[in-house]
Amino acid sequence: MTSSARSIKHGSFTIDRKLDIDPAVVFRAWTDPAVKARWFSGPADKWTETLREMDVRVGGRERLVGQFSEGSESRFDAVYIDVVPDRRLVYSYEMHWQGKKISVSLASIEFVAAGRGTKLIVTEQGAFLDGFDDGGSRERGTESLLDNLVRVVSGR
Amino acid sequence: MTSSARSIKHGSFTIDRKLDIDPAVVFRAWTDPAVKARWFSGPADKWTETLREMDVRVGGRERLVGQFSEGSESRFDAVYIDVVPDRRLVYSYEMHWQGKKISVSLASIEFVAAGRGTKLIVTEQGAFLDGFDDGGSRERGTESLLDNLVRVVSGR
Repeated sequence: MTSSARSIKHGSFTIDRKLDIDPAVVFRAWTDPAVKARWFSGPADKWTETLREMDVRVGGRERLVGQFSEGSESRFDAVYIDVVPDRRLVYSYEMHWQGKKISVSLASIEFVAAGRGTKLIVTEQGAFLDGFDDGGSRERGTESLLDNLVRVVSGR
Repeated sequence: MTSSARSIKHGSFTIDRKLDIDPAVVFRAWTDPAVKARWFSGPADKWTETLREMDVRVGGRERLVGQFSEGSESRFDAVYIDVVPDRRLVYSYEMHWQGKKISVSLASIEFVAAGRGTKLIVTEQGAFLDGFDDGGSRERGTESLLDNLVRVVSGR
């Protein structure tokens, strides 16, 4: 890469979902490795997991590496910064695509008690690196993951 | 703290400064511990440094702890996520005030060659925790630090 290609484009999005499920159950879907593996992954028809590890505590890391059928590798690499049981997670993460660091983000996950259910609020503040054009794909991908999450915690 | 006090307020700001100084010199002001100590600190008349350490490499940490004369402790605790010599720094950091984690932020520092000088671009994307009301003080504090930086690198 030539030095002139260095650039950063900043952006953020917030997604919320209302769930008829206790915050402790929704929190567990983010922090129990076996549950998280059921919804947080690449598309089943064209992606294969090659590494998954997580350690949800302040300073702990999470990694998810996978291979797309056309050959590209995706890598999610996170560090937990704030963990409040049943209430909140804050982590920073890098995304790598085909061996290149394409973004650094701060993700806040809020589990707000709402009646007998949960208002789940996901906010990402991101720095997209060196001309990588997200074009809203991170937000759409997160929507899709949350659809998976809702199915898993609803037992559907 | 009661659980009902858990909340997050997100915000961001960007500050840029045009300097008649080579990007390598400006970058060094952010990465050489002796130079950074000359501009990155609390107010000299009412703040005393109690701990300073920095290790500018991916995964390396930086800490700056100080005591205000009225007794409050401030703590800056950062982890470097991206380091491109003379071009870019990205780090996440926590701020603690009086023993409480008040914010988690993603900071991007860009050193862009502009003629024979540098356009320095500082962007912070932050999550302010549990009702802490920033009221723009982080942005004003960063402006003040950059004023110090300009004085130091200009030899004034």
